[in-house]
Order: sequence, then structure tokens, then C-alpha cells
Amino acid sequence: MAKKLGRATWLMDSFVSVSAFASSAGKKESEGPFGSIFDYVDPDDRFGQQSFEEAESAMQGLTLQTAIEKRGIKPEEIDILFGGDLLNQCIGTSFALKDFRVPFLGIYGACSTISEGLLLSSLSVDSGIAERTANITSSHFCTAERQYRFPLEYGGQRTPNSQWTATACGAIILEKGIEPPFIKAVTVGTIEDKGIVDANNMGAAMAPAAYSTIKQFFEDTGLLPDSFDFIVTGDLGLVGSRLLIELAEADGIDLRSRHLDCGKMLYEIDRQDVHAGGSGCGCAASMLCGHFLPSLKSGRMKNILFAATGALLSPTSTQQGKSIPGISHLAWISGEA
Amino acid sequence: MAKKLGRATWLMDSFVSVSAFASSAGKKESEGPFGSIFDYVDPDDRFGQQSFEEAESAMQGLTLQTAIEKRGIKPEEIDILFGGDLLNQCIGTSFALKDFRVPFLGIYGACSTISEGLLLSSLSVDSGIAERTANITSSHFCTAERQYRFPLEYGGQRTPNSQWTATACGAIILEKGIEPPFIKAVTVGTIEDKGIVDANNMGAAMAPAAYSTIKQFFEDTGLLPDSFDFIVTGDLGLVGSRLLIELAEADGIDLRSRHLDCGKMLYEIDRQDVHAGGSGCGCAASMLCGHFLPSLKSGRMKNILFAATGALLSPTSTQQGKSIPGISHLAWISGEA
Repeated sequence: MAKKLGRATWLMDSFVSVSAFASSAGKKESEGPFGSIFDYVDPDDRFGQQSFEEAESAMQGLTLQTAIEKRGIKPEEIDILFGGDLLNQCIGTSFALKDFRVPFLGIYGACSTISEGLLLSSLSVDSGIAERTANITSSHFCTAERQYRFPLEYGGQRTPNSQWTATACGAIILEKGIEPPFIKAVTVGTIEDKGIVDANNMGAAMAPAAYSTIKQFFEDTGLLPDSFDFIVTGDLGLVGSRLLIELAEADGIDLRSRHLDCGKMLYEIDRQDVHAGGSGCGCAASMLCGHFLPSLKSGRMKNILFAATGALLSPTSTQQGKSIPGISHLAWISGEA
Repeated sequence: MAKKLGRATWLMDSFVSVSAFASSAGKKESEGPFGSIFDYVDPDDRFGQQSFEEAESAMQGLTLQTAIEKRGIKPEEIDILFGGDLLNQCIGTSFALKDFRVPFLGIYGACSTISEGLLLSSLSVDSGIAERTANITSSHFCTAERQYRFPLEYGGQRTPNSQWTATACGAIILEKGIEPPFIKAVTVGTIEDKGIVDANNMGAAMAPAAYSTIKQFFEDTGLLPDSFDFIVTGDLGLVGSRLLIELAEADGIDLRSRHLDCGKMLYEIDRQDVHAGGSGCGCAASMLCGHFLPSLKSGRMKNILFAATGALLSPTSTQQGKSIPGISHLAWISGEA
């Protein structure tokens, strides 16, 4: 049974193993510095579908199916599936999953969804509630643009601090086992709101949440940043990453030397004209499944903290002049037993 | 540790007690047959706020605070808070909870949210992951109408099978204890989609999901409907309830004599002109917290199955002509040890 440490961290009591994972992405993501890491790349981001929403669901279905096949199981061998996405009412996920016929719990953590799923999954597996779980999440540039900002046809200008929603997806299967990587601990985030109101600067809105959760993990466990190869955030981008480093520095914590941000990694920021970097549930999920989990599995990395970050706003709250609450959930993922 | 039975049911191993609960509602709900059961009724549905979205958040904050005070604890004594709502990106919940400073996991199950929260909470408490959890969910007629259908000012006609989104909220605190009511078992739902495309007939879209989960519970446990005082669904309304009874009858299961539906109970359907009944996350949550939990606590009821039901559609999926996937999660709630 996972042991609770401090306010919000749980240390696993058993070997909770990431037994399979898969990722997929769109064309622009395939042209970035990590373009070759995905299991599947769609040449036109449509995944063979008529609408972009259907494309996002197809991407999720394909990615989950790939993870299931890599593990060599059938969907009915999954006890619980945790999933969600950025679309209103999480329709990307509900339409993707309906043919899998697996007991399903919908989660919403905006771009922190992959961490939230990992967290619920690893607690479920460690405690014996589930023998095997799966997580899925995604984002799609074209569904997000028309829902959160403008229809693509409008050709709206993007502000300097805006981020590019990744067309990407990650799926993970967890169960007890002796094959790395392992989920060693998780920290549940708390909603943080420092009053940022610019919906085109989500990195700034999410940085305090990322820092709060990372700090909570260190407080709860007594560990220090130098126990980890990397401290990875989800999609803070250029602006949010800088703020994270500064927030930590103000507390005398040096994150600079080991911080990575999936939103800064997924694209070559200048060449690909993504302004402050990548974002979206799929950004952190695809980098985790395409890059970090393979690196931990092969031994190239030993330990990372993975803290995906979500901005809990909606266009309605923005139109009403409200600030942007953020949240970040964290998993300590290890390549060592 | 909860014992898994069959495909999707978990039987609790300890006394998971509902240690506090609270409900609140709007004016119309207070004029219904259960109008006197709520802890708080707002006279104009605005809960002292400027916008309806802020009103919904204020209602959640107030209801959670009431439950916390009834239990005589402080927010920091809650290990994990599970919450969500119907608004895009679940902003009702994120804005409501940001001042509570409790580790938060967002969930999305549309109107099944209160069941999904109960399920995750009771598994967390039973397994020892959390000592104490809280659940919160809500809906608001005015936020739902403008988001899902028409702005109120438009005065759109409502179709005969449409349901009235309740302005209502429920909050529940769970922990191990010897005071009833207890959560005895839970069943995780699977997405069901029988091809209903009429977004004004959500009862029909959700009935197969409710039936699937209820049937799964009976299959997994070997229990029969006559073990329960009532089998309660969330918001199937008149149309969905009829379909549920018929689906069960086709399998030789008689639910007629013990089925209740919160959507049929919350309003006096003809006098209050709510067409096919009530709906919304708050409908099932407020009836659970205002009526069923007190009845189980006082011994007026001994055992109920509580299966809130969610329609996993969005206006976008409806506009694209897609069908409506449904889901229902179930909890067996008992007044007996």
C-alpha cells in the first residue's frame, strides 16, 4: 500500500511498472527535434477522418491500440482506463474509447492530464485495486485553435507569448512488474492562481502550479533536485520555464541545471515559429511516451520527476475577465528498481 | 483492500463511511416536491455573484464549506478532493476550489460525476490511500442553457423530451468510520452508445449506460434487485426511465418496482413544466445529499444502488451529427453495517 508522505505525496510500496507505452503525432511535430520518436505520424493531421475532432479521437484510439498491442494483451485485460483531453466535455476521449469496452473513468486536468492519469493509475495498481490500468490523453492543434481561440480560416495573429497546441497523443499501461520504468511516487497538485489573466500566456499561469507541486514533492520526501537526472515540466514553454526557475531560485532551490520542459523540446522554437513553445495535453504525453519512458527503460536516464501542468481556464472565464487557475500533478519515474 | 468482483465491481473491505454531506439548490428546485431537503436555497440562483458561472462556483464553494463544517474539520484535513462539473473545462469546479488549498483531482463524467467521485473516493479510503476525501459537483440551469443550447434571452422552445438542468450541488466527505451510511461496493461504468443523436433526448442516450452498469453490478456480485430498497438513477427522466425498465425487462430483470430516478423526483414534472424531468450533475448530487443519504443515515432506507448517468456529448459533436455516448457509475450505499 502506497505510503503517504507529508501533505500530498504517495510513495509506492511495490514495483509499479510502465509495461507499455505508445505515442503519435502530427506533421509539424514530426518535423521537430524529436520528430522520429513517435510510433505513428500522420502526414496531414487528419488521421483519415472528416473532422479534426474525429481526427483527435482516431489518434487516441490508434495510440491506445498500439500500446495494447505492444503489451500483447486485449482491451478486456485492462481493469480501468483513465483518460481525458482538452475538448469541451472531453469528447476526444469519449468518442475514441467507446469501442474498447473497458471500464472508464474520465479525468480533467487540462494539460496535466497525463500526470493525473499516471497518478491515479499507479495508486490503483500499487494498492491492488487494479491489476492493470491504461491512461490516454491527446491534443490537436486544429480542434484547440477553433475551440479556444479562432477558427483556422480566420488567420488570427498569434501573440509573442502564445504557445502552439501539439497534435499529439500518449498512451501508457501500468501494472506490477519487474521491468523498468517504475512509478516510484506521485504528488497530487493543488490549484494555484496568481492572478494571470492573459489567456495567451498560459506558461505564466501554470508556472506557479508546477513550482508548488515540485516544491511539495521535495518537502514531503526530503529529497533534493540532484537526486534526479531531470525535472520535467509539461508545457510551460519559454515564459513559464523562466518563471519556474525564478520561483525556485527565490526559495534557494536550483532547478536550472536539471529542468526540461516538453513545451520547449517538442519543436525547434524559432525555425518552427511556435512563439513560446508547444502546449496541449499531447505535448507532455507524447514527449513522455516517445522520449522519457524509452530513455528510462534503456537506462540512459535513471530518475526523473515528471510534472505536467494544466491551465484550468475556459474561453468563457477569459471573456469574463477571470484569472487562470493552474494545476500540476507529479510522478517520480525511475529506470532503477 | 477492496476486492474486485467480476469485470468492474469492487466490494469494500472496511467501513467506508459517508461522514458528512451537504446540498444546495436554486429557487425552482426549492419549489419542487423535495424543496425542503437542501441545506441552502438561493432565492434568485445568483448566489450573490455577477455572472451565472460565478454563481455556480459560489454554490460549489458554499456547499463544500457546509459539508466541511458539518464534519467539524478544516480543509487541510482532507487528503484528496475529487470534483468536476458540466461547464467547458470544468471551470465551475476549478474556480470554486482554488481557495480551499486541497490536493485536487479533476474528474469528468458529465452527470455521472457524483458517482465517479464517490467511486474514486471510496476506493481511495478503503485501500488506505486517503484517510479522508471529499467530492463535489454541480450544475446550473443558466450556465448549461447558454453553453449547451441557447442564450436564455433567445427564449428558445424546449422540445417534449428535453430535460431541465438543475441548479443544484452536492458535497460528500468519506472516511473510515462506524457511522452509516456506508459505501459497500462500486461498479465502474463502460461507455455505451446505441446511436441516439437527439441532444434533446439525453434520457434515451443514457438509459443503456445505466442499464449496462446496473446489470454488471448484479452479474459481478450475484445479488438481485430485491436486496435493495431502491435502484436509483441520476437523470434519465421520463423517457430514459421507461427505456431502462424495458431494457431490464427484456433480460427478465424486474426493476419497475424499485426504480427511482432523481430526474423524475426533483421537480413536480407537469406543474413545473420541466418536460421529461430534471438533469445535470447537480440533480443526482443534490437528491443524493438531500434525500437518500439522510434516509440511509436515519434508517428509513437500508440499501440503495445509486447509479448517476452521464451523456458524454458536446455541442460540437452534436453539430457534427455524432451520436451520444453515455456512461454510468454505480455505488451500493447502505444504512447497515
